[in-house]
Formats: sequence, C-alpha cells, structure tokens
Amino acid sequence: MFFGSDNTAGISAPILAAIAATNTGYAGGYGNDALTREIEARLADFFEREVTVALVTTGTAANALALACIVKPWGAVICHAEAHIMVDECGAPELFSGGAKLIGLEGHGGKLAPQTVAETLERTGHQMPHHVRPQALSLTQASEVGTVYTPDEVAALATLARDTGLGVHMDGARFANALVHLGCTPAEITWRAGVDMLCFGATKAGALAAEAVIAFDTGIAEELIYRRKRAGQLISKHRFLAAQWQGFLEKDHWRDLAAHANAMATRLAEGLLAAGIQVPFETQANEVFALLPVELDATLRAAGAVYYPWSPHAIGLDPMPTQGQVFARFVTSFQTREGDVDALLDRVRAAT
Amino acid sequence: MFFGSDNTAGISAPILAAIAATNTGYAGGYGNDALTREIEARLADFFEREVTVALVTTGTAANALALACIVKPWGAVICHAEAHIMVDECGAPELFSGGAKLIGLEGHGGKLAPQTVAETLERTGHQMPHHVRPQALSLTQASEVGTVYTPDEVAALATLARDTGLGVHMDGARFANALVHLGCTPAEITWRAGVDMLCFGATKAGALAAEAVIAFDTGIAEELIYRRKRAGQLISKHRFLAAQWQGFLEKDHWRDLAAHANAMATRLAEGLLAAGIQVPFETQANEVFALLPVELDATLRAAGAVYYPWSPHAIGLDPMPTQGQVFARFVTSFQTREGDVDALLDRVRAAT
Amino acid sequence: MFFGSDNTAGISAPILAAIAATNTGYAGGYGNDALTREIEARLADFFEREVTVALVTTGTAANALALACIVKPWGAVICHAEAHIMVDECGAPELFSGGAKLIGLEGHGGKLAPQTVAETLERTGHQMPHHVRPQALSLTQASEVGTVYTPDEVAALATLARDTGLGVHMDGARFANALVHLGCTPAEITWRAGVDMLCFGATKAGALAAEAVIAFDTGIAEELIYRRKRAGQLISKHRFLAAQWQGFLEKDHWRDLAAHANAMATRLAEGLLAAGIQVPFETQANEVFALLPVELDATLRAAGAVYYPWSPHAIGLDPMPTQGQVFARFVTSFQTREGDVDALLDRVRAAT
Amino acid sequence: MFFGSDNTAGISAPILAAIAATNTGYAGGYGNDALTREIEARLADFFEREVTVALVTTGTAANALALACIVKPWGAVICHAEAHIMVDECGAPELFSGGAKLIGLEGHGGKLAPQTVAETLERTGHQMPHHVRPQALSLTQASEVGTVYTPDEVAALATLARDTGLGVHMDGARFANALVHLGCTPAEITWRAGVDMLCFGATKAGALAAEAVIAFDTGIAEELIYRRKRAGQLISKHRFLAAQWQGFLEKDHWRDLAAHANAMATRLAEGLLAAGIQVPFETQANEVFALLPVELDATLRAAGAVYYPWSPHAIGLDPMPTQGQVFARFVTSFQTREGDVDALLDRVRAAT
Repeated sequence: MFFGSDNTAGISAPILAAIAATNTGYAGGYGNDALTREIEARLADFFEREVTVALVTTGTAANALALACIVKPWGAVICHAEAHIMVDECGAPELFSGGAKLIGLEGHGGKLAPQTVAETLERTGHQMPHHVRPQALSLTQASEVGTVYTPDEVAALATLARDTGLGVHMDGARFANALVHLGCTPAEITWRAGVDMLCFGATKAGALAAEAVIAFDTGIAEELIYRRKRAGQLISKHRFLAAQWQGFLEKDHWRDLAAHANAMATRLAEGLLAAGIQVPFETQANEVFALLPVELDATLRAAGAVYYPWSPHAIGLDPMPTQGQVFARFVTSFQTREGDVDALLDRVRAAT
Repeated sequence: MFFGSDNTAGISAPILAAIAATNTGYAGGYGNDALTREIEARLADFFEREVTVALVTTGTAANALALACIVKPWGAVICHAEAHIMVDECGAPELFSGGAKLIGLEGHGGKLAPQTVAETLERTGHQMPHHVRPQALSLTQASEVGTVYTPDEVAALATLARDTGLGVHMDGARFANALVHLGCTPAEITWRAGVDMLCFGATKAGALAAEAVIAFDTGIAEELIYRRKRAGQLISKHRFLAAQWQGFLEKDHWRDLAAHANAMATRLAEGLLAAGIQVPFETQANEVFALLPVELDATLRAAGAVYYPWSPHAIGLDPMPTQGQVFARFVTSFQTREGDVDALLDRVRAAT
Repeated sequence: MFFGSDNTAGISAPILAAIAATNTGYAGGYGNDALTREIEARLADFFEREVTVALVTTGTAANALALACIVKPWGAVICHAEAHIMVDECGAPELFSGGAKLIGLEGHGGKLAPQTVAETLERTGHQMPHHVRPQALSLTQASEVGTVYTPDEVAALATLARDTGLGVHMDGARFANALVHLGCTPAEITWRAGVDMLCFGATKAGALAAEAVIAFDTGIAEELIYRRKRAGQLISKHRFLAAQWQGFLEKDHWRDLAAHANAMATRLAEGLLAAGIQVPFETQANEVFALLPVELDATLRAAGAVYYPWSPHAIGLDPMPTQGQVFARFVTSFQTREGDVDALLDRVRAAT
Repeated sequence: MFFGSDNTAGISAPILAAIAATNTGYAGGYGNDALTREIEARLADFFEREVTVALVTTGTAANALALACIVKPWGAVICHAEAHIMVDECGAPELFSGGAKLIGLEGHGGKLAPQTVAETLERTGHQMPHHVRPQALSLTQASEVGTVYTPDEVAALATLARDTGLGVHMDGARFANALVHLGCTPAEITWRAGVDMLCFGATKAGALAAEAVIAFDTGIAEELIYRRKRAGQLISKHRFLAAQWQGFLEKDHWRDLAAHANAMATRLAEGLLAAGIQVPFETQANEVFALLPVELDATLRAAGAVYYPWSPHAIGLDPMPTQGQVFARFVTSFQTREGDVDALLDRVRAAT
C-alpha cells in the first residue's frame, strides 16, 4: 500500500528495455547521436510544430532552466503559492535565473484564477526600477493537488500574461496525467493555448530520470543549450536519456502509464468518497487528497499504508482541516496495483 | 576504430544489470532508500574513513558543486590552464560558486608543478579586498593528457595549498584509471595526501551517468546536500544512481573496467612509438596523445578511425607541433577492443 | 508643501561642511585614512561595543550586503510583506546573496508580530533539502509605515529567530527617527535586543549618500569587506563618506535632524486628526499615513502639495480604503518647515 | 610628495561648489530631477549622439554593470591580464554578470595587440556549449600603465571584436587623461571607433565619487537601469551625483583637471629620464612607471615620497626588473603640485 509519491516507483519495463537496446557500440557524446536526433524529431511530431528540446535528468533542473530563459534576473515569476518551483526546489529557479523573484499566489485547488493573476499584475512591477517586473507566469499541469487546467483555462491565463509581456511556463512533471485526463492533443494544451515553454516529465510517469524542456519559441535554442551545459545538466552518454524518451513515446506508452495511474487515483478517490471520507478536490490526475480522521490515519499507517500529510494552506481548502483531521496526499503511479488500492479501501471501510 | 572519447562507450553489463536488479517494488525517493545508504557505507569503506557522499549525474555538476563548497564567491581556484573546469564546463564552477574566478596555470604534461603554484600564490590575492583570494587548488587525476599524479606529488601540492589556506579539490573523472596505474589505495591518493574533496567518476569508466562528490571533511555535508538540490542534481529515483555505483564497486568491477581501458591505451601508445610516431607524454591512464604527420592523419580518418585534434597549448609540449603535424588525442575505454587498436596500428605501420 | 520623501531633501549644513573640511591634502584611498578610522571608533562608542563597519552609499546596498552575510544562497529571509527589501530593491538581496528567497509576512502597522513569525518558522524549511531554510529575520526600524518597534518587541522577535538559528537584520534607513522616538540607547534597540547586523542610514536623515552596515558579530568582518568591494560599493575617496558620518554624529547632529523630522510628522498627524482625517497608524517617526477623501486629495494636489499614494495591502489596514478614499503617505525630513505643514493643514481644514 | 594614486586627491573646487550650489530646496529622488536630465543632455552633446546614461559612484560598479549588459553568464570578456576588471575588482564583473569569465591577455605597455586578440578569438569559444563564448572586448583608456590607445588602434581592435560578434567596452576611469593626450573628440575615440559602452570616470579626475556608464546603443537602456538599481547603485539624492558631473563638464573643467595631471606626469617622467632612470613606457596620461634602483627607492621613501611597487608581469616589460630594481608606479592628479614633482626629482638627481 505505497502511495507516498510517484517517485518511489521504478522504471517501466519498456523504458528499461529501450535503455538496454541502446547499449550497443559507440555513439557521439553530449547529444551528438542519432537517437537524440530521432527523439527531437518525435517530440516535434508530438507537439505538431518545430520545437527546441533540452533533455535533462530532474524536474527541478528543467523548471529552473526554462524559467531562466524567460525571466531576467530583475524579473519575477507569478506562480501558485504551493507550486513546486516555489516550495520544493530549494531556490533552484533563483540560482539558475540569477536571482529572479517568485511571487506565490493562493488559488483554489492548486490552480491560479485569472482574477488573482490580473490583480497581481495590476499591483506589481510598475515602479521601475524599484520593483522587479513580472516576466513569467508558471502553471503546473497537473497541479500540485491533482487538478488539471483545461485548454480554455490555460488560454485565459496565458492571454492575460502575454498581454502584459509575460512568457508562459508550464511545469509538466505530471503532464502525461493531465493529457490523459483532458483527452486533448499536446498542442492544444500548450502552445495553442499560449504556453511558451513546457517542462515535460517522464520520470514520475515511469522513466529512470528523464525530463524534457520544450521551447516552442525556437529563438531560445542557443540560450537554453548553453544554460543546460553550464548547469551541469548535459549528460555525456546522452543516448541513454534519449532512449528513455524513446521507450516513453513509442506506441504511446506514456498514455498507458498515465492512464493506469489516473485510473488508480480515481478508484481510490471514489472508494474514499463512498466510505464517507472528505476528498476536497476533484481527482483529475494521479493524486488524491483526503481529510482523514486521525484515528483512521493511525489505523492506515499501522496497517503499512504509506502516504504523506500535506500543507492545507494557499490551496483554498474550505473548511480547513480540524484538529481531528489529517490532510493527506495519496499518489498513484504506473506501478500501483488495483489490489493495493482495494486493500487500503478495505481498511478505510472497516474503520468507518 | 573508435577513440573519440570514453563518453562514447556504453554501459558495462554488470552496471546495467545492477540497474535492472534494483527495478523492483518501491523505494523512498531522493536518496531515502536502502541501496543509497549501502553505497554510502561502501564508499566509506573504499576510502577507509567517514565521508559525505553526494551522487550526481555529470562530472561538470560534481566539480562545480565541490568547488562551490570550498571557495567563496570572492575566492579563486588555482587549476591547470587546460583543466576541464577551466575549459570545458561553460562556466559551471562560476555559476555554482556565485562567481568565483578560475586561475589557469601552465604545466607540463597536464600536471601542475609545485613551483608554479607557489609563485602564483605568492603573487595573488594579497591586496584585500581588491584581489580575489585563492581558496582552492584543483588537480585532475588522471590529468587531461592522461598523466597521473603520484601520492607524493599530490601531497607536495596539497601541502603548499593548505599552508596558504586553500582547500584541495580533485577532479577524478578518470580516477579509476589513475588508481589502476598507481596501484595504491584510494585513501593514499586522496585524503591521506591532503585532498579535501574528490569528484569520483563512474560514467567514463562504464556507468550510464554516475558521479560521486566525496567530501572527506564531513562538516561540509549540509552545504553540499543543499547545493545539490538547488542545482537540480538530486535525482528523484535515486536508487538507480546508487545501483550504478553498486555495479561499479561490486567485486572491484571498477578495477577491471579501468585496467582494460589503460591496457588498451598502453598497447596503442607502444604501437605508435614502435612505428616512430611521437607520443609526447607518458601514457599512464586511458589517453594517448600523438603528433601525427598530416598525411597519416588523413589516412587514418579515411580508414574510419575516430579521434580528435587537441590543443597543444599550456601543457608544456616541446617542441610544439609543426605545420605538418596534427596533435591528436586517442581515448580508450572499457569497451575498446584489442582488435580495434591493432587495426589502427596496422594502418599506422602501413603508412610509415 | 513637499512631503514626497525624505530622499527629496538636500544635505544638512553641518554634513556638507564636514565634506568641505575634509577636502584638504591627500588621504589614503579605499578607507585607508585617519577619518575613516575615527568614524569606526565613534560608531563603536555609539553602540557601546566593538563593531565591524562598512560604509556604503545606498540603503539598498547596505541591506543586500548585510543579508548576504547572514543567509546562504539556499536560505530565506523572513520580513514584512511591504518591507523595502521585499518590494523596493529590485531583487538586490537576491543578487548579493546568490539567490536567497525573501518570505514576506503581513503585519499590522508595518510591524511583524511574534505569532506570525512563529507560525511561519513552524511551517517553513523543514524538508531538507527541498525547502529553503529561513536563516534571517529582517526588521525595519522605523517601519515602512512610520511605526517603531520597542526594545521589548525587538527582543521578542529576535529571541524567536535566534532560537531557530536565524540571524537578525535591522533595516535602519530611518534608525535615527526611531531612536529619537524611543529615547533609548542605540545599544538597547540593537545588539542588546538581539540584532546581529544593522543598516544605519544617514542619507534620508540629512547626508548626501551615507549608509553604514554595522556588524555586531565582528567575525563577519572579512566577508563583509570582500562583499562590499565585489559589489562595487567601496568608494575610492572614502574619506568623504567618513566625513558625512563625522558631520552626522558630531554633537549628536543626527538627533537634531531626526527630532525635527519627527516633530514635523507629529504636527502634521495631529492636525489631520483634529480635522477629522483618519490616520490609521500611530505616528512615531517621520511618516504620516492618512485616508484622504478623494476630493481633499485633489484639492491638496491642486494646491501644490506633493505626497504619494501608498499600498494599503499587508499592513493590517482595517477598514481598507473605500473607493472614495486615497491612502496617502506624507514624509517629513530635517528640511521640512513648520510653515509648510501648517499651510497643508490650512488647506485640509478649509476643505473639511 | 604624494604619488600613490589619483584616488588620494580630494575634490576639485568647482565640483565641490557645484554640489553646494545644488543643495537648495527639494528635488525628485532617484534621478527624477532637472539637473540629472540636464547632465544626460550634456553628455549626449559631449558625445555628439543620443546616449543612455547611468551615473554611479565607483568605477568597479560602472565596469561591472556595463559588462553585465554586454556578456551573457556563459560569455567571456577578453581583456588585458593586468586590467582593473581582471585584477582589482574582486570579482565584481563575475557577480554582476552572473558568472561570466574574464580572459586576460598579455600586451605590451598595458595595451592589447590585435594579433593577440585575433589568436585568442580563433582558439576560444568554438565548442558550443562546452566552452564559454567571448562576447565582450574590454579596453582600458588610458591603460593601467598610463598609455593611450589611438582612435585607429581602438578601431582595429573593435573591428576584430565586432566581426566575431563581441561588444566593445571601454574602461575610462582615466578617460579624461586619454582625451587630453589624444586631442581628439570624445566621439572619435569611442563610438566612432566602435566602442559600445564607456565607463567614463570623474572620480580620479577630481570628483567626490562620480562615474558614468555611457551606452551608445540606447537599446540597452532598460537593462542598464534595472541592473543599476539591483546593484544598489541608484543613489537616492541623485542630484548630487549629477552636480558633480555638472562641475566636471562645465567650461571644460575636466580638460583642465586632466591636462594638469598629465603635465605633472610628463614633467616627472622627463626628469627621471634625464636623471638616467629607466621609464619603460611612454608617459601619455597621468602615470609614470620607473625601474628604480633599490637604494634610490629607499632614499625616496625615507624622504617621504609615497608611491607603490607594481606588478611587472603581463605588460611586456623587457628586460624585467633585476633584483636590484623596484618597478614603481607614480600617479599624478589635478592636485599634484609642480613643487612636489621637482622635490622628488631633486632627490633622484642627488642620489644618482
């Protein structure tokens, strides 16, 4: 009953097989190999347009690199107060960007509302040069609480941003989960909706360590490539990074991985709701948030269930957890077994 | 006949097997897993003392992180003018350290001489606060031109450095090759000789992407761990990084890998010398540098041999290449086949 | 009727005279002069203990340098959401510190409450190394809205901070005004209350451009001195910076300057209150904030009064300004004439 | 007999008078005042074209700001090995630029030769993204050893630079001295010769603390203005910085100041040469370098002469100083009295 994080899962079999299959002969280092070029072409197909691609090994590096290409050191990034870039990257965006500021806004269900962003843009950055100037809007897709922006929602926010001169970044550590939920094309939810740079994650979805910075504005290519090297993120045996993407994209393997994770989350959420547990946000990706009575929490942990308490702040939780409740996050992955979900739900039902 | 770089080789079979063997069940993310703890213990054994370990995916990241823990932003790093950190890391040490300066010195055979370092320390950093202050000495082991510092040589340089308040960094991207050449213990060539931080590379030796920053001063632990995260170098599925080290260390696999690479280089160097080709530096690791007549260079390339021309500057080449010569670098790896070396030598003999 | 800012005033006569008096013969550059040493000794007397002093030319530089000596790049600074370092320094603290994060908290009357700080410390920085770690608490004295922390208030906050390992920074751009209000000694409101570093401003009070970073922990000396130079803040003809401090400190000139400015603010606040205008915060230094009916605002501006609208956010304004009100800031200085205050008040009375 | 530095002189009377004259009434802060606008217009006249001006208080800040506007963090600055930015600014260019690298080249008489620059450009920055890319050429005018580039020399170097995509920076801490020597227009030796940004110094020439970053490419304006604020270099009572420029420019006061300093240096150099002392470089500005016999050096110091030993490296000194010689730098200023020069020369003649 392992619901701690999608990072605790392993490597999906086809992705590991792709690594092994690539392990033959010699190939140019640092991305100068045929497989890397093939993956770049595939990603262009995936997004239905020319793109600049920089493969890296962590989501933190991907986000920080992308943001550094959008904001100047005297710029600011508008994001959700609980965004990964704000809370969980130990200042990587600040390091990579040369000291830009992140402005975290509250937003229901982990999503930013256009009005909140508009008010912030109205209030911020106007006293040049005393104030930093907002230059990027960052959206997390799927969000930190497992909700998903629709193309219309992204477009509304991106239009606001672009009209004020901001670039739009999408943190897609769980982009595949969002895509599966939406059923739209990758293009529709990114550049067609106004996204300039996407950090497309394969790691949480099933790779060893494979993230892609996708720049829809190819004018950014040189800067991105220099920044990646300078950040120590240009892998020398790059073909094995490309191989993970090969395995991930081949035969829409990404879709199967994410669909399973999402289905497990839905199964879990429905079970919890049926048992009378509060699940405050709609379960649209592979995360389920629940308000567990403390006794239930103790019972589940005693039974070996692994999951984490979560910060109830800034995400519009209403009402807030009582003293008798734990706000808990459950994450599913490609590896989550139906049996584990059901075993957890059995414990819940037995205890409630 | 592939002698372009050790980065162009693949993954050694036992290391890939270790990755696959680890791919079962769940494990804590970000290094909170049993295998990571095991590797940390093994590395402590390897070096015969308590160490702080930070695993990362590139040598550039390893070097830049280690140096950032040693030098202040207003500090300077003394290194060889052709050191990887000086020439090939696109300013990563400057980024990670907050803008420290690298001072590159000439040195015969890619190695720094104590006198050169002493003169530099005498001349540099004394006018506080106008001058940056040297705070780190960086040695490359094996060096960029395939030579190896002996424990006595390291100790002489480290003593000089420490007496002036500098910390000592060792770039060990090819540390295994150096160890095999020296036949000494890892402790003897590192902390016992005065090294404070070692970047121990497994990638060039046969891993997918696995480098270890080893701090012999464990007081640096917190800073190192924060810096790694902030640099986007903390891999989420960390057990697969640990697995590569498991494969590398188990049954002294590292030694077999490096011994083969070194032997291939020696075979190549001896063959070239026997054919009358100038090989200016002693071949002590897995690199061979040669002064090839331009006609021979053309012949070899036409025959499909892959290797690169190299900068003859700052490494004490005497005499310098003539207009009729190409200064060429050949790198061998665990994957290099004896047959390929011999095939190359056949071409050389036929042409000379 | 000039109440725009204390920065719009000139140089007080004794300070300008001190500059002129110093303009004779030669003196060592970069602080190697007798007057600089004298000022350092005087500031030690002023604070009744050994201090490290770094004179600079702007408050932004002073704050950013001090904070950079306290927080690591992966650290965070807890401050008021409307603090100058948060809002008005264009990311200077981020630049100087290598990318530390500022966490802005709401607080009534521009002051931080212990409970708010305690809650933040409880919630922040515990997941090493994912979260940045709070390492500094920054207090503004007098605050951005002209209120003043008492020694007990500073001590309560500083104790909280120090117990959690944070250093305490005081932005004293209007420190003289606070001192005059409190009537305590400089020691009592700084190091005796737990402050580690003070940015003591003379510019707003009457100097040309003279700020002092005062480190009560003299162990920070070397770092501070290097950082100042590296930031381009080490003035070559340093004696003229020292001269401004000479004029400022001599015969307690600072006290006269600040006492006048404070008295003018009090006169203005009392007049406004008597005329029925809302003055939401106690006027304790040289700033008066008022909720002006829009018609009155128009009348005053038409009459030539200069002052600025201010952000009503994050400072606990209750109730918030209505649509019919302007939240206005009036700043007095050593140069403000009683006649100007009275002229403004005449207009107010006439209009209300 | 004070020849230590031009920084040890005071403020010229007209410049101090301009400060005093400005000290009346109120003026907008942070450069929003009439005098600042007037100075900007005057500087445009001075250079015969539209310029962007950022006034700051130190040469280090000016240089670092200008370079940061030209080079990317992954860029390199080509400069003389003994340039102030390389040796005497404690890494300020690295801090302000986000970690760019400085590449110092040897050059006779403190000046860069086109061939040296061309060879460096040919060898450097071509392996993208492993190598940093040269993006700026920095020339010091007058140079660190008191020599002056002619417009043709600047044009030759600038053409080389621009043809390879580099911007051209001129460190003009002693620009007035160079102008007086050349007798050309400011335009001829700057933008007409290919200079993109000039750091024009008034401090060494006679101001309190007044340097101007002049951007001939006005497209850089926004970046420069943000960077200045963020570096803590935007003086709040900015009119007093403008006033120094007013005094400096009015009635060509700059020319009188520099002409006197240059004349004193020439007088000193001629006297030394006449006394048989080696003066290795032509004295073209306000610095004289001499090879003093150690006994003479001792005699002069005993007599109270103040001057500094200088590094003989990298400036093409041929022959190098013997063990019996001190390589000494004498600097004159607007304040140097003929009598002091003659008194020094008397001692020299008496001793030789």
